[in-house]
Amino acid sequence: MALSRAPSQSLGISSYALEVNQALLKEDDDLLRQTFLSVFREHHPQLANKVDVIFALAQAWCMSESDSDFEMLEKRLEALTPDETILVSSAFSQLLNLHNVTEESITARVEKAARLGEVEQATRSTNKSLQRLVSKLQIKPEDIYAALCSQTVDLVFTAHPTQATRQSMLKKYGEIRHAMDRLHNTRLSNYERLETLDEIRSQVQGAWRTDEIRRRKPTPQDESREGLTYFHETIYSGLPVFLRRIDTALKNVGQPPLPLDAKLFSFGAWMGGDRDGNPFVTPDTTRDVVIGARLSAVTLMTEQIEKLIYELSIWRASPELKERAKQVQARHAAGAEGEFLETKKNTYDVVFMSINEPFRLVLSDIRARLQRTKDVLHHCLEHSAVNVHEALESDPEAYADEVELLATLRLCYDSLISTGDVHIANSKLLDVLRQARIFGLCLCKLDIRQESVKHTEAIDAITTYLGLGSYKEWDEGKRMEFLVNELIGKRPLLPPDLPMTPEVADVVGTFRMLAQLPNDSLGAYIISMAHTASDVLAVVLLQKECGVTPMLRVVPLFETLDDLQYAETAMRQLYSNPWYFNHIKGKQEVMIGYSDSGKDAGRLAAAWGLYEVQEALTKVADEYSVHMTLFHGRGGTVGRGGGPAHLAVLSQPPGTIRGTIRVTVQGEVMEQQFGEKESAFHTMDLYTSAVLEATLAPTQEPPELWRDTMKEMASTSCDGYRAVVREDDRFVSFFQSITPVNELGRMNIGSRPAKRRSHGSIDTLRAIPWIFAWTQVRFHLPVWLGVGDALNKMIAAGKLELLQDMYTNWMFFRVTLDMLEMVFAKADPRVVKMYERALVQPELHGLGDELLAKFQETERGLLTVMKHSRLLSSSSTAFLQQKLQLRAPYVAPLNILQVSCLKLLRSIEGGAPVEALVPADYKPSEKAVALLSRGAEKHPFVAGIEDTMIITMKGIAAGMQNTG
Amino acid sequence: MALSRAPSQSLGISSYALEVNQALLKEDDDLLRQTFLSVFREHHPQLANKVDVIFALAQAWCMSESDSDFEMLEKRLEALTPDETILVSSAFSQLLNLHNVTEESITARVEKAARLGEVEQATRSTNKSLQRLVSKLQIKPEDIYAALCSQTVDLVFTAHPTQATRQSMLKKYGEIRHAMDRLHNTRLSNYERLETLDEIRSQVQGAWRTDEIRRRKPTPQDESREGLTYFHETIYSGLPVFLRRIDTALKNVGQPPLPLDAKLFSFGAWMGGDRDGNPFVTPDTTRDVVIGARLSAVTLMTEQIEKLIYELSIWRASPELKERAKQVQARHAAGAEGEFLETKKNTYDVVFMSINEPFRLVLSDIRARLQRTKDVLHHCLEHSAVNVHEALESDPEAYADEVELLATLRLCYDSLISTGDVHIANSKLLDVLRQARIFGLCLCKLDIRQESVKHTEAIDAITTYLGLGSYKEWDEGKRMEFLVNELIGKRPLLPPDLPMTPEVADVVGTFRMLAQLPNDSLGAYIISMAHTASDVLAVVLLQKECGVTPMLRVVPLFETLDDLQYAETAMRQLYSNPWYFNHIKGKQEVMIGYSDSGKDAGRLAAAWGLYEVQEALTKVADEYSVHMTLFHGRGGTVGRGGGPAHLAVLSQPPGTIRGTIRVTVQGEVMEQQFGEKESAFHTMDLYTSAVLEATLAPTQEPPELWRDTMKEMASTSCDGYRAVVREDDRFVSFFQSITPVNELGRMNIGSRPAKRRSHGSIDTLRAIPWIFAWTQVRFHLPVWLGVGDALNKMIAAGKLELLQDMYTNWMFFRVTLDMLEMVFAKADPRVVKMYERALVQPELHGLGDELLAKFQETERGLLTVMKHSRLLSSSSTAFLQQKLQLRAPYVAPLNILQVSCLKLLRSIEGGAPVEALVPADYKPSEKAVALLSRGAEKHPFVAGIEDTMIITMKGIAAGMQNTG
Repeated sequence: MALSRAPSQSLGISSYALEVNQALLKEDDDLLRQTFLSVFREHHPQLANKVDVIFALAQAWCMSESDSDFEMLEKRLEALTPDETILVSSAFSQLLNLHNVTEESITARVEKAARLGEVEQATRSTNKSLQRLVSKLQIKPEDIYAALCSQTVDLVFTAHPTQATRQSMLKKYGEIRHAMDRLHNTRLSNYERLETLDEIRSQVQGAWRTDEIRRRKPTPQDESREGLTYFHETIYSGLPVFLRRIDTALKNVGQPPLPLDAKLFSFGAWMGGDRDGNPFVTPDTTRDVVIGARLSAVTLMTEQIEKLIYELSIWRASPELKERAKQVQARHAAGAEGEFLETKKNTYDVVFMSINEPFRLVLSDIRARLQRTKDVLHHCLEHSAVNVHEALESDPEAYADEVELLATLRLCYDSLISTGDVHIANSKLLDVLRQARIFGLCLCKLDIRQESVKHTEAIDAITTYLGLGSYKEWDEGKRMEFLVNELIGKRPLLPPDLPMTPEVADVVGTFRMLAQLPNDSLGAYIISMAHTASDVLAVVLLQKECGVTPMLRVVPLFETLDDLQYAETAMRQLYSNPWYFNHIKGKQEVMIGYSDSGKDAGRLAAAWGLYEVQEALTKVADEYSVHMTLFHGRGGTVGRGGGPAHLAVLSQPPGTIRGTIRVTVQGEVMEQQFGEKESAFHTMDLYTSAVLEATLAPTQEPPELWRDTMKEMASTSCDGYRAVVREDDRFVSFFQSITPVNELGRMNIGSRPAKRRSHGSIDTLRAIPWIFAWTQVRFHLPVWLGVGDALNKMIAAGKLELLQDMYTNWMFFRVTLDMLEMVFAKADPRVVKMYERALVQPELHGLGDELLAKFQETERGLLTVMKHSRLLSSSSTAFLQQKLQLRAPYVAPLNILQVSCLKLLRSIEGGAPVEALVPADYKPSEKAVALLSRGAEKHPFVAGIEDTMIITMKGIAAGMQNTG
Repeated sequence: MALSRAPSQSLGISSYALEVNQALLKEDDDLLRQTFLSVFREHHPQLANKVDVIFALAQAWCMSESDSDFEMLEKRLEALTPDETILVSSAFSQLLNLHNVTEESITARVEKAARLGEVEQATRSTNKSLQRLVSKLQIKPEDIYAALCSQTVDLVFTAHPTQATRQSMLKKYGEIRHAMDRLHNTRLSNYERLETLDEIRSQVQGAWRTDEIRRRKPTPQDESREGLTYFHETIYSGLPVFLRRIDTALKNVGQPPLPLDAKLFSFGAWMGGDRDGNPFVTPDTTRDVVIGARLSAVTLMTEQIEKLIYELSIWRASPELKERAKQVQARHAAGAEGEFLETKKNTYDVVFMSINEPFRLVLSDIRARLQRTKDVLHHCLEHSAVNVHEALESDPEAYADEVELLATLRLCYDSLISTGDVHIANSKLLDVLRQARIFGLCLCKLDIRQESVKHTEAIDAITTYLGLGSYKEWDEGKRMEFLVNELIGKRPLLPPDLPMTPEVADVVGTFRMLAQLPNDSLGAYIISMAHTASDVLAVVLLQKECGVTPMLRVVPLFETLDDLQYAETAMRQLYSNPWYFNHIKGKQEVMIGYSDSGKDAGRLAAAWGLYEVQEALTKVADEYSVHMTLFHGRGGTVGRGGGPAHLAVLSQPPGTIRGTIRVTVQGEVMEQQFGEKESAFHTMDLYTSAVLEATLAPTQEPPELWRDTMKEMASTSCDGYRAVVREDDRFVSFFQSITPVNELGRMNIGSRPAKRRSHGSIDTLRAIPWIFAWTQVRFHLPVWLGVGDALNKMIAAGKLELLQDMYTNWMFFRVTLDMLEMVFAKADPRVVKMYERALVQPELHGLGDELLAKFQETERGLLTVMKHSRLLSSSSTAFLQQKLQLRAPYVAPLNILQVSCLKLLRSIEGGAPVEALVPADYKPSEKAVALLSRGAEKHPFVAGIEDTMIITMKGIAAGMQNTG
């Protein structure tokens, strides 16, 4: 009988890796905090001690959760003077951002370690998942190869309205992250170590001394330029290296490397193309952005070609290449004297290169033509009337697209192979070939997005002017008949002298502009708020009328629950229309959005609605054998935690992802997923292995019973959600007093205005501020409201077993509940009560207590279904739990400060005289006044409170690190 | 009674550091050799084994020096077929280049180690020499500070005619060096280690597969562009870091950091300005090069400004800066609509930036103006008739020079200081301030160099046309009188319709071009072959006539021994001329050249001649209290070994270097001194500490006795030298048969033609081929010929003690002898005998034996004076000795192959039919034929031999690593 000795640790897969990470995270967190505090101490010695004590008290409270510790913390914070409050709140906001830097740095390090195989890691790398597919799921390597060759993951960058931290701050944090990695990964002498610590310090100082409140709105061009920096910094050079690792992974399962023209990834952008509710996006804006992206593409390609010119200095070449080199020489030699004077700056070194360097001759010619392309684009920028497309086509020396460029690079490649220089062919040249293939000369394709009603009004303006009646009043049938006829007919519809309102002029102007832009720079035309099939045909017609050839694929975006349910019929109508059917040549893309549907039906109902819609749309597409690509606008999942992009892919209905997927990447996520080379690898790794698995080893269909249960829960939660948000008339005023939703307007976040047209109900609120407001009070109501009703109803009906089975074996249900668990882990009822006590008038407290009771029930229901004793107790989330614990002492003081700011601001708005609120003995130094009144020309005390208000919002957002 | 145990090693300062380096060098040498051999084996498996055996035999011979080993080596090499010979010689040439890479990599590593203080090192770093100056030489830190503030080291980049290895090869070797450093300095996982080894391999392969023979001549623009790459890669970003280390060093001796406007270094260039004997350098070439350099300066500065835009996002600013930010905003806002359409691409983000980011506003304005400057320069490039200077001045938005730029950056700097952000002020911004200060917007200043007779002929054309007589026939007196009058007078001299020969047109065209170029891009006007004062005034007059304002300083270059002796009177005449005296405002620069004087008087006489001339010139300058800067064209010192740049400075006559020095940096030396960031630091470190010491602690004057002895030895060696080179009529034919001097023409090295006008004597040979030829046979005759006579005459006169005293205590004499020792260490009489036996007809062997006897005597004399038992036996040269030992087995086979090539080539030129020479059973595969006939359209066998010939020349040059 084997005695059993006492087990000294909880069971769990590779819990060592976990401990290693936790130890490292803590170490770095301490380092950055100490660095920040010493910078803070340098500028505000006295205040620094107070911050120490506040932090220690916050820590003690977060651990003991005793009221006495809480009061001490509260008292310390109230004892601060207004200018100290700004500095303290700014300090904790900085500490939170720095903490996030350590989280990202650790993630990147863990990734590198995982790639180096130093620790084996929960999330998967492609290398590992290939082997897993082969060894565990018995998938034949040839199938993997085929799947990889036909995979396209299309990542669409969109600026997001609540990018809280400013780009320049994000850059500083990026620099700090680089320095942190150097600190840990390279052997530094003590000199260099100090130089690196010193660099971290000056970046921390720079971040600290920067006004973290963005004082003006970014323009779409700003947003576009910021998006392009990720191509310059990580994506352009990182992708070829990633493809190389894929080759290695394929080699390890005995497969040949990827074919030369495989493009696993392509990139899109919305910045400068998305005009939905953003009047600053004009046709010219779109034009500027397209040219900007092409300029970057040409610049990046030129850099690569120049490196190749140095590297390929060998003399052996294939006959075809020699022939080409001779033509190049002849062409330039012939032209040398003739137009010697005109544009000779970058041709003379072609002229004098010798035939013994065939590669350099051919490549220098490429460089000359790229330079030429650049000039044409500059010319287009300077003369906004020039048609960009023609300007590029009409100039024989400029590249209109990457076709010729690719052919020449291929010629070089084949030549090296034929002379036995395989090793050289597969080094730098291969990377450039792939860059030319994937990024072309446009870098990324711009999507255009507009609301359906705009097109309705545009066509209406035409039909009324032509006396055909008012398009707006026609029913769906008549609209379809009209549109189809116009599309089939040859007669122009758009009269040249049509009187247009500015809105209609903008719509028509956009289409006319699209006709002048090179079409390889354009992606999809997305109709937001799409309701019916005619919405789609209307856009097709407008393209035809304005001469957009070839036409952009039109993608309907179904956003509200109603539209989602109606999406299937809309698509069926389209496919059944013979003209449209063969217009799309068997390919259709549909976009489904998360955010709005969550706002009016609650998360569960929205998630399930989307799930069903995807299946329905896939089924309809299969009926007509149309290959449908689903475009996921991923605004909705709250929180990211451990790379849900990957989970998001695998939680789609099985079979809806067949090797192709399109997803959006928003503001903050850009920095996280592509700010770092390591994280860029990790991101591409995750998407590749997720798509591979969803394609080759889809999870099996959920059984009927699960669906019905899900359907029932969705409607129960929807009712529970609406019962509060719509029918309970105490809710709106409760909402407006417990959250800073009304004060949100002040944070000019994002280029588009916050409110739709305004009358005081939830409907007018956009989804983002709605969720953002609840996040500030750490309640996240929109995420869980109604879920409790659904879960507990099922449990009460004795279906606990069933739910647990669904959680364990249904990826969709599991991801949904994991996400909820995570939200609960970030919520803090004590903070909610604090907000309620301080800001909500007593007769509404009833509602507060009801909601808190619902919160508890939902949490209990959740934990029961997940069989977790407490939140985040499974090992895969242990790391996350530690992250939240480390953030908690930074967030707590910000919540307390926000409450006191809201109280003051509202009493000021309530007409209280400012002087009455200023503590009597407070005499700010003029430095303090300068600090207080950076904002507008208000009374410094008021300006100070507003700034504090905004800072706490950013800090808490960074602490919750989920935006909208 | 202390017993003494057996000593286990020779005594010597820090002999551990020496052993460490030797162990590391050997390790890397093995690594690169193994890598190369495995690449070689991949392409030529059979031949690889032969190379192994040849290498082993070469090693055995180099160590045993026995004839039997030599014969075995010779036999193996003769057994090679012609196409194998090419591959084998190319292999050893590559191995030598790779070996040099290890030497450089070790040097860089030792430097880094020395800087990190891991080993204490023989050569000095600034940090150390500051402390040495303070602690040992009791120099007050304040004096050091003052000396540093007024130091300027002016480094002038010149393309050199014998840059043997091609730029693209140099780049590959640079890449290999980077990879080697990564291999040793960073912690690599085995994956990354293999990736790095793999990278080395593909660079080695690339180098191996590149045709190492340069098939066409580089243009001056090529040379200029190659020079600029060093600014882009190391100098521009390295210099500020270096100045930072100077600040640290100053801090360590209790001194404040350098003042903001200190510029310890400035940079010049000859590429595109030096038209002496180079007809390809036309006025347009000069213009192109000037514009090219300015474009690089603007591009580099723009990059820095953009980084600053991200970093300086803080809101606190001084009132002056706020004011400036407002003006910037107003200026762009005002202009925004007006010329909205014209050039808006890079202004709109100025328009929408908020006043809360004053730094970013001001910096974005700078960026806009830099972009503008770029456009103006592009415009100038496209229209060669445009006057560059005016184009820049006339455009208010463009920067004509760096004055305004500096003022704005200063404004930012002072603002940060005033708000207490000292830490931020002294990070990136300080670096940019220094870059703007030192490199300005021209990057480096272009010197113009032309031969004196060209100006004489130009003025002669004028005087004859005006009927004033022929300037050429006038004596010096009449010329001076004429020139001075014209300079004082107001009447124009140059008639507008002067008929000109192409040469005169080129001279006048050059001056007219200089008048149109921005003068901060121009350096000095150098007159080569300057003989008299009128040569100088002629140039001043031509500048006046062609409207060059402000005038370039005119620098006479005295090159031959006669001119050097006459230089003093020429300068006296100039200073005594009142017009010229106040024209130069107390500043005059004189250039003294090495190479030609060495050719006609031998090294010793030349070195001493220069020594005396420098003193004489300094004395004359002091008489007229003119601050004279000596410009050292350093072509002449053979070999570099351990950083003689440093020794070269300290071996100048004491007091001739007063904080300022100008030196040239040629082709190969550019790559060595600035190819690597580490070596760039090391170079700047060396110059700084050398100039500091020469300025603050000059070595004391050599006593009369030493001078007289030196004077006597100089003339004895001169006679000994000329006795052979001029009076011995066997010499010329001996020279032409034992060296490949006549075959040299084939290596098109450098943009200028090899021969002056030709009739068959030494005089027509330029200095470079003359030395290069003797280096190939490992005899270096021009360096030591005649020195033996001088030394042994003194020793015979019983002055050995005196000579030894001179060697120990006179830096000049010591450097000269050390250099000679080094040449002897590289010479190999056995190789000379081999050349003689095979190539010189017997009746000239007498001369050979005489010269060899002289060689032995000179060596003995040298070692006796230096008290060395054998060559390179002192510890400071032990490392060098090992380098030579490691190279020897690579060079030996190349010499043997060169001899057999020369024999064949000469018998072909002697009319032997080619078929008779081709071995009967030799049937080359067509791959072999392709290999043989890469050159011209000769018979493949002949072409093969010529290529082999050239390859061995490059290889041996790399092995001797001294070029001309």
